[in-house]
Amino acid sequence: MSELIQDFPHQDKMWMQRAINLARLGQYSTKPNPNVGCVIVKDGQVVGEGYHPQAGQPHAEVFAMRQAGEFAQGATAYVTLEPCAHYGRTPPCAKGLVEAGLKKVIVACSDPNPLVAGKGVQILRDAGIDVEVGCCETLAHTLNEGFLKAMATQMPYVRLKIASSLDGRTAMASGESKWITGAEARQDVQHWRAISGAVITGIETVLADDCELNVRHLKDIDDISHIVQPKRIILDRQGRLPLNAKILQHPNTVMVMGPYRPELETLGVVQISIQSLTNLLAYLVQEHQIYDVMIEAGATLSTAFLQENLVDEVISYVAPTFLGQLARAMFNANFNRMTEQLRFKLIEVNQLGEDVRLRLKPSQETV
Amino acid sequence: MSELIQDFPHQDKMWMQRAINLARLGQYSTKPNPNVGCVIVKDGQVVGEGYHPQAGQPHAEVFAMRQAGEFAQGATAYVTLEPCAHYGRTPPCAKGLVEAGLKKVIVACSDPNPLVAGKGVQILRDAGIDVEVGCCETLAHTLNEGFLKAMATQMPYVRLKIASSLDGRTAMASGESKWITGAEARQDVQHWRAISGAVITGIETVLADDCELNVRHLKDIDDISHIVQPKRIILDRQGRLPLNAKILQHPNTVMVMGPYRPELETLGVVQISIQSLTNLLAYLVQEHQIYDVMIEAGATLSTAFLQENLVDEVISYVAPTFLGQLARAMFNANFNRMTEQLRFKLIEVNQLGEDVRLRLKPSQETV
Repeated sequence: MSELIQDFPHQDKMWMQRAINLARLGQYSTKPNPNVGCVIVKDGQVVGEGYHPQAGQPHAEVFAMRQAGEFAQGATAYVTLEPCAHYGRTPPCAKGLVEAGLKKVIVACSDPNPLVAGKGVQILRDAGIDVEVGCCETLAHTLNEGFLKAMATQMPYVRLKIASSLDGRTAMASGESKWITGAEARQDVQHWRAISGAVITGIETVLADDCELNVRHLKDIDDISHIVQPKRIILDRQGRLPLNAKILQHPNTVMVMGPYRPELETLGVVQISIQSLTNLLAYLVQEHQIYDVMIEAGATLSTAFLQENLVDEVISYVAPTFLGQLARAMFNANFNRMTEQLRFKLIEVNQLGEDVRLRLKPSQETV
Repeated sequence: MSELIQDFPHQDKMWMQRAINLARLGQYSTKPNPNVGCVIVKDGQVVGEGYHPQAGQPHAEVFAMRQAGEFAQGATAYVTLEPCAHYGRTPPCAKGLVEAGLKKVIVACSDPNPLVAGKGVQILRDAGIDVEVGCCETLAHTLNEGFLKAMATQMPYVRLKIASSLDGRTAMASGESKWITGAEARQDVQHWRAISGAVITGIETVLADDCELNVRHLKDIDDISHIVQPKRIILDRQGRLPLNAKILQHPNTVMVMGPYRPELETLGVVQISIQSLTNLLAYLVQEHQIYDVMIEAGATLSTAFLQENLVDEVISYVAPTFLGQLARAMFNANFNRMTEQLRFKLIEVNQLGEDVRLRLKPSQETV
């Protein structure tokens, strides 16, 4: 990370933090575009700021420059992501910053998008603008985990959600599971769904819960009509999805991986004939610009994603209760030795109501 | 709690906090006596302070009064536990406070010990000293969970320690378990052992691990020779404890619940013929003044204590790893319905190195 090489003055970090907070205002609505924020500062005063609110709308820099007007002359811009260098739905922001007469541009993250990839910075430098990259990079990276990973690797960022008892159980043997975790944990799940391009589940979960896996409530947001709802992807290798499943009430955001069924085609459901989980994930990036994927599934599918090392982050909600050995295990791999264990690195732990949320990333550590 | 009825001025709480910090200096060495701290304040200055360091040594008030000397005249004493009213190994502190000429005594917790139980406060009041009870009571209560519970109910305070993977497993099927949790979590276990009068385990754990269950290292304490080591209690219904078990290297702190064996008698091991867990716990209070008990056992014994509602606190260390469905479950009750679940209340969550520690108390909540 650039922070390790060069530390930025406190003042720069403060302005960039403000740009990051602005960027986050678009977190539920910019998909498939990244979240970006921009703050333009002159003589220690903010003269313009903005964020990218939605695909098709102007970029963050455009809003900030509009607000700054002639005050942008000789000012410093703080941008959370390298300004774009290509003509897309909007003209390149790097050129706009040059034309506005900025003196300096501080960037948090480089854009690994091959269409940008250093070209944005180059345009600025060629025009004589002083450019620094890497201010608050780690934090800014969290704005766009999926976008940044997908641009660099063509694979999405995969979050696996698990809700379990303290003894690692997700339901009674009968399937009974309402409610192991409490209201705050369930509310938190809505956030992760809402920043995802797709939620993946298995047919067993749909058959058992008749779940919709859409976003219904977001904390502090009254009207969720402007958010981009995640696609709901069902792995259904035997074509068992009932046509009256609740999830099919909005069929245009449903995708089914399984045998071709003309009745699903009629409904407008995207059908996927891919077999492997790896290929499914690559397909989502390539064909659907889905960069953040959330897995909300039973133990079999969750275990498969974990064992194939396809999970970038585990979001584990643990309820302070014991369900016993007959209850369903959260992870059903058949390991015999400690060397087989799947070890993660704890990145965050929080109390949510009566439950605990752990966030984990794969560990490189050999045990 | 008295705090709800009467809130104390900030200044009083600050001095009581200081007395509580002093009391904690004795946490590993006063057993079976409680931890007590005392601060004597005159005109906003500390004129004397002390804590009870060890059974047989003077009480906290005595050290504080000695230090204060004539400055105790007209001063206020902050004591974390109601001053004693009986002649034990030392004369009653309540009388000492009267003789020293204190004007006011502020007490955190009443002493439920039938030998004290309000009598200490009464002696002070009868002598015209202004007494207030309940300042920082909740915090002061944590100094002496076991002592206070045992005095009130004749049963010890029972802590159940569990170390598991995220999927609720304590070892591989083979028994292999080194190390699921990391060094910091294992170090933390030493603290809880050291404040315990006894550690209870099962014969299977002793046979599998040849564990000693004693205190070997305490954070920030170089020399642990002055601490009171917990008794190690082994439940061994079939008399299988091998005489060369490491735990028998210090046989005078070992107790075995099982059939009578003359060879254990020869070693000086206390043998217990009790059958039930409830009776065992009551026996430990009555016959051995053991007020804090820690369970460090396998799933069978841990589950028995949990199912008999004998656990006051679960201390659960969760490692960020998955061990799979063949691995040993932490809790082996055979529940079929959610209504049977054992639900707890989360009282604290912390990150310890790479692991998470949850502290839980039984929940009264109906699910």
